[in-house]
Amino acid sequence: MKRRTFLHTASLATSSFFIPSSLNTAKKLGIALVGLGNYSTRQLAPALLQTQNCYLAAIVTGTPEKAEKWSKEYNIPKKNIYNYQNFDAIKDNPDIDIVYIVLPNFMHAEYTIRAAQAGKHVICEKPMAMNVKEAEQMIQACKKAQVKLAIGYRLYYEPHHLEMRRLATEKVYGQVKMLSSALGYSMADPQSWRLHKDKGGGGAIMDLGVYAIQGIRRTLNELPLSITAQGYNTDKNLFKGIYEMMHFQMTFPSGAVSSSETTYSSFMDRLYATTGSEWAWSEWQFL
Amino acid sequence: MKRRTFLHTASLATSSFFIPSSLNTAKKLGIALVGLGNYSTRQLAPALLQTQNCYLAAIVTGTPEKAEKWSKEYNIPKKNIYNYQNFDAIKDNPDIDIVYIVLPNFMHAEYTIRAAQAGKHVICEKPMAMNVKEAEQMIQACKKAQVKLAIGYRLYYEPHHLEMRRLATEKVYGQVKMLSSALGYSMADPQSWRLHKDKGGGGAIMDLGVYAIQGIRRTLNELPLSITAQGYNTDKNLFKGIYEMMHFQMTFPSGAVSSSETTYSSFMDRLYATTGSEWAWSEWQFL
Repeated sequence: MKRRTFLHTASLATSSFFIPSSLNTAKKLGIALVGLGNYSTRQLAPALLQTQNCYLAAIVTGTPEKAEKWSKEYNIPKKNIYNYQNFDAIKDNPDIDIVYIVLPNFMHAEYTIRAAQAGKHVICEKPMAMNVKEAEQMIQACKKAQVKLAIGYRLYYEPHHLEMRRLATEKVYGQVKMLSSALGYSMADPQSWRLHKDKGGGGAIMDLGVYAIQGIRRTLNELPLSITAQGYNTDKNLFKGIYEMMHFQMTFPSGAVSSSETTYSSFMDRLYATTGSEWAWSEWQFL
Repeated sequence: MKRRTFLHTASLATSSFFIPSSLNTAKKLGIALVGLGNYSTRQLAPALLQTQNCYLAAIVTGTPEKAEKWSKEYNIPKKNIYNYQNFDAIKDNPDIDIVYIVLPNFMHAEYTIRAAQAGKHVICEKPMAMNVKEAEQMIQACKKAQVKLAIGYRLYYEPHHLEMRRLATEKVYGQVKMLSSALGYSMADPQSWRLHKDKGGGGAIMDLGVYAIQGIRRTLNELPLSITAQGYNTDKNLFKGIYEMMHFQMTFPSGAVSSSETTYSSFMDRLYATTGSEWAWSEWQFL
């Protein structure tokens, strides 16, 4: 499953996980996209043209040219276009039900909290935050404001991941004993915020490793007991304070163990689980 | 490639790696199989019916019924049938050029050394020995006796492994950065010598892990700089003093890193190498 189908799936699943109880099913929920980078441009906005229960109501961008282009392309009225200075004024805009935060990782906490304070529900891209403290502050802010908070971990909804989880948790082929996952892309762009620790939070492990972790955790429906990890760099100028590549191993209460890889300088994409029998399940569209 | 094709390949390759220089090409080399277990019975003996430069000349077995059965099936004369008491008498048998040792791991060193002392060339199954000291003694014995010693690591000859090595070492897709390998089978038989440390030498890592190590090492044509490893057991009665499952990570002089898995309680079989580009190579008949 490609990323673009995520939002569609998420939308279909809204009734069970996100839709406010007060929803009038005749009315589509208005989404404000915050941050109009690649993911918003290529995946989210086009997908929001196909959704049944929500639509692209507003945008938040610091680039006037983008505002103009998007306004025309998606028929967004001027009053629903915000920048990072007047962002908090969204609280007075009834067209916006949900704020979808698609900003670099270091801005997730701030904008989640400000959206909650504006009384809006929040979808925030993965990884949730730069650290546990920020994540807890985000949860607290949303609880206090009585709004819902969802993180863009699409593995929770994708049919093939759900089936993998079913096979494992229902022990269809027996107890899962070993799991393996890997996600990597060539992202060695020195200009990218992803390569800066203060903006991305920690390189490949924060950006891609989260899928490798979640793929295993969700398959088993367990939390790890222990984690060991090894970090590697082949280019210390390009990868400063972050790891280019990581291996990590986890153990789980059931006795299952896992081994994972993530990298910013190779392509890899897989998830396996094996039982005492000869079951081996794989996928090639993990991302 | 299945195991059964190994010997065929090895035989075809003999002229470059094993054949004694004195070989009269009109004469096939006589092989004595030592140990008539599954591997000899199902793979080696049938394959030796198809080889061009060698043939099954003799057997060594402790089981009289096997001796009789094999003698008929493979037309082996009585004078070429030995047991573990009269094994050393092979030195007087000109029909035997090579001794192929297919015994449990703890017997590899002893029978390699005795075969060498009998003036015969030796092929010994993997893993070579229980430890480095034994391996060195085997090499010394063969050097002293001026006979050749080969270990049954078929990755050195199989076409798909050779191609993987070519792609990596010639940098056809660029410098390999990360490699991953896994080999596992369900072998939880408490009766098997493989599950006893004093006979198998160390469980899954000695028996199956060697392929995971060699697959990576041969692909890169490098020796590791460092190794980290984690061992796990879910059944401490079945796996005493050996690990049921292992993860291990290696680093190499080129900067490449690898992650591997091996287990006695699941099926897994794969080898990957990735470069900065999007090359991902895999195989599903690693064993």
